[in-house]
Amino acid sequence: MTTAVKATNVHWHEGDLTRAERFGALKSRGATLWFTGLSASGKSTIAAALEQVLVTRGVHCYRLDGDNIRMGLNKNLGFSAEDRAENIRRIGEVAKLFADAGVVALTSFISPYRKDRDLCRDLHAKATGGALPFLEVFVDTPIGVCEQRDPKGLYKKARAGQIKGFTGIDDPYEAPENPELVLRPATMSVADSVAACLRLLESRGILG
Amino acid sequence: MTTAVKATNVHWHEGDLTRAERFGALKSRGATLWFTGLSASGKSTIAAALEQVLVTRGVHCYRLDGDNIRMGLNKNLGFSAEDRAENIRRIGEVAKLFADAGVVALTSFISPYRKDRDLCRDLHAKATGGALPFLEVFVDTPIGVCEQRDPKGLYKKARAGQIKGFTGIDDPYEAPENPELVLRPATMSVADSVAACLRLLESRGILG
Repeated sequence: MTTAVKATNVHWHEGDLTRAERFGALKSRGATLWFTGLSASGKSTIAAALEQVLVTRGVHCYRLDGDNIRMGLNKNLGFSAEDRAENIRRIGEVAKLFADAGVVALTSFISPYRKDRDLCRDLHAKATGGALPFLEVFVDTPIGVCEQRDPKGLYKKARAGQIKGFTGIDDPYEAPENPELVLRPATMSVADSVAACLRLLESRGILG
Repeated sequence: MTTAVKATNVHWHEGDLTRAERFGALKSRGATLWFTGLSASGKSTIAAALEQVLVTRGVHCYRLDGDNIRMGLNKNLGFSAEDRAENIRRIGEVAKLFADAGVVALTSFISPYRKDRDLCRDLHAKATGGALPFLEVFVDTPIGVCEQRDPKGLYKKARAGQIKGFTGIDDPYEAPENPELVLRPATMSVADSVAACLRLLESRGILG
């Protein structure tokens, strides 16, 4: 029986698989693409399109965003300063695990504070077995454009004082100082943004 | 230039990739193998060997264990009853994300309480887009054997009262009632245990 033959073909060595062994056997390399930008800047649209393009090419890729994180892993976190920092820290840790597994992790969160993003970069730099690529992608859409789009009506509520501490209105957005990539959706198509991300991944040897 | 050609070959559809589209394109199916058992029962040895065998075959597989979770994602958790439950909950959520990504997640934690494991099973059952396989593997080694092995000297410390609330000594281990698989390392080789896990994965259609 085929199953029995396959199941008995069992070989391994002592100790953990090295990252090089893993990436070699899987013919894939992990990395984190960290999208950051204002609410409604276009982060999730670009990340979702990039995810589809990569997966369609057979590249293991996974997107972490509000839908699968805030409702799951981080559902016990609120919006206090402490909880926001913990939210980003956990996302950074999970992205690091995905990258370590040989998956391209895409994170799509406003992540407005430089120190929180830098902590996530640092987690990747100090990953067991050597640095894992952490590529910060600044989705640089002017706030006027974001506010005009306002697909969820959040800017409107923030202006009306119904939401407090809203990034760009009454809470700061600290733009990245040295991002690996800057995208400007106000003047770039989604296809152009996705292509720029693919070129970044190719230039770092993450795509074959 | 090859890079430019590849980067402009950008096609996607509106909305999220479905799980079926993802698993089809990646030719892989995600699942969680949840190893549970006493300290020194052999969970990590089996999980590490299985991980190597799967990765060597080109199957994206990733092991979550004390080394990469307690030092990272869950480093802000202690050993209170509340923190232990939160530890297992977060691991269940992360395993679910891996499974959703098309990766075989192996979790290797004592996870002594039935209700914590059942919560993780439930998270998988209720995953967005339909159930993800959650396969509980009971590593059933008699406590006498575990205590004799005691590679980290933990049983000795627990018997001496230097560690409180140690599973099997002064804290209960609630054995699974309906695990998908039972392994008995006291009378089975690691190769046999790995083969049994492979057969389970094959029987569920997770390995092609």
